[in-house]
Amino acid sequence: MTANATRLRIILDWGTTSFRALLVAPDGTVQDSIETEMGIHSVKDGDFLGVLQRAIAPWRTAHGLLPVYAAGMIGSRNGWIEMPYVPAPARAEDLAAQVKIVPLPDGGTITFLPGLTDCSAHPFPDVMRGEETQLVGLGLERDITVVLPGTHAKWVRIAGGRIVAFQTLVTGEIFGTLSRHSFLAKVARKPAMPDWDAFLKGVALVRDDKRPAGLLTHLFAVRTGWLSGGLVPEQMTDYLSGLVVASEFQEAKALEWFKDGERIAVVGDDDLVEVYERVAGAFGLSLEPAPEDAAVRGCLIIARIAEERYPTVLAGADRQRRA
Amino acid sequence: MTANATRLRIILDWGTTSFRALLVAPDGTVQDSIETEMGIHSVKDGDFLGVLQRAIAPWRTAHGLLPVYAAGMIGSRNGWIEMPYVPAPARAEDLAAQVKIVPLPDGGTITFLPGLTDCSAHPFPDVMRGEETQLVGLGLERDITVVLPGTHAKWVRIAGGRIVAFQTLVTGEIFGTLSRHSFLAKVARKPAMPDWDAFLKGVALVRDDKRPAGLLTHLFAVRTGWLSGGLVPEQMTDYLSGLVVASEFQEAKALEWFKDGERIAVVGDDDLVEVYERVAGAFGLSLEPAPEDAAVRGCLIIARIAEERYPTVLAGADRQRRA
Repeated sequence: MTANATRLRIILDWGTTSFRALLVAPDGTVQDSIETEMGIHSVKDGDFLGVLQRAIAPWRTAHGLLPVYAAGMIGSRNGWIEMPYVPAPARAEDLAAQVKIVPLPDGGTITFLPGLTDCSAHPFPDVMRGEETQLVGLGLERDITVVLPGTHAKWVRIAGGRIVAFQTLVTGEIFGTLSRHSFLAKVARKPAMPDWDAFLKGVALVRDDKRPAGLLTHLFAVRTGWLSGGLVPEQMTDYLSGLVVASEFQEAKALEWFKDGERIAVVGDDDLVEVYERVAGAFGLSLEPAPEDAAVRGCLIIARIAEERYPTVLAGADRQRRA
Repeated sequence: MTANATRLRIILDWGTTSFRALLVAPDGTVQDSIETEMGIHSVKDGDFLGVLQRAIAPWRTAHGLLPVYAAGMIGSRNGWIEMPYVPAPARAEDLAAQVKIVPLPDGGTITFLPGLTDCSAHPFPDVMRGEETQLVGLGLERDITVVLPGTHAKWVRIAGGRIVAFQTLVTGEIFGTLSRHSFLAKVARKPAMPDWDAFLKGVALVRDDKRPAGLLTHLFAVRTGWLSGGLVPEQMTDYLSGLVVASEFQEAKALEWFKDGERIAVVGDDDLVEVYERVAGAFGLSLEPAPEDAAVRGCLIIARIAEERYPTVLAGADRQRRA
């Protein structure tokens, strides 16, 4: 058995508000995980190294200097180091070619994965960090449009084994700031379970409006619905959610990210996937299955390519454990 | 000289976050004003009466039981009393016919002005509270489109001496919540003076985009502009402002609230008027002059009509002082 076939790896999901480390077997099985609130914004004096070492110390004691991999915001301007963006169109190999391996004081390594940029975007190049790894985990073999829900949702075209082009829509940010801070949603009450009827009414408002109305117009319906008795406080948040995500689909359709009746994939690992799948259905789209652990899968694929490319450095931790 | 010609009136501008009382002469001159932070949300146990009486006590000592008038949010569901909405199309007389005169314990009165509703709006009736008074103050004689900037901006059609129809766009709410709470604007720094160049770049992004892109797409340019070096932190807030207000104009144009080269009026009393006038100019519109004190003028006009209609009740305070 080669080292590669038995090796455990540590994969980090280190965002602005949370820290998560996964102990991952070669087949992608998560053997253990650690989750703390030490997101990038909570790390004092840039001591990312200290936070990491304390978190993974038990695994290192048990398993030696396991290689660490990190995609996403920890490799951004406000994170540990600022990683470059690989220009689209890009294959998994193009991403692996731009990893940065940083030696750790104890002899281990942390390997940062690059982001992705679409320089054809208007008026500034579009960017993603982390989603490119999820896309690799989904697989780049099929030609398909993919949407990745989130604070800054991404619509992506995969074709010919590459991530060809993508575009960001700030849907999650609009929903989040409005539901937490706006007058619109001031009287809203969160129901125990999502109110899918209210949600679909919000979707229908946008999808079925024959007028060329936009988001600034539609949003006021959250308030006038409440004032007129058309919505009760328990319905307002889900109505807002349906309205905003449907607006994303409407913009994506106008910009030809999808056509009527097409098949798309929704990639993510939280409740937003169901939200997006329901809106996709309401827009007449069918769904390609997508794994929940696309981020881990993608990170492993890129890690393996990088390890073949830089065998001496990245096998170091492994060799040391066996020595 | 009649009582009406010499009478002082108190006009309230009592919103969710601030309280303002104006002592107004018959010609509309503001003789004195009181401003506190006792907005509707700060009033404990619904004691609006107490807040009002304490605020205007010095004026009453000096001038007797002056009649008090109040338009806007103090007459809403979360305010002192919930006033009805007069359906558009409506004249000043229609608004005056729906005032509600509430006697005060000391023998004076407070008169609440109604709001306005447009029942033709989709999917729920649209509403305004306070802006209808500004429109009366602007004057309903000219046929013209009017925009009233604000948290919930209003586009209004005035024709045949009436407020015919209107529509709300939640521009101010989007700008406010995003500039204060979003990742988009996290690194933005407020410049000492507005950066009108950055502002106009935000306007141009929306106005000149040949794609059918919407707000969710355009907004991410605030972040990618910063990431790519196209915007510095001091430019981001004004770029966001230009982008969002231009999106309002784009939606208003698509919905035929104005046509190329038309003349519109921008009505308001704060810095937003300049912002909107600049965007109107960028969209090729010319501007009808509008008074800054439209709210006071409108309130006086409606007050006089109401006083002719209800002379006994509304002259009561006046008579008592002279007795």
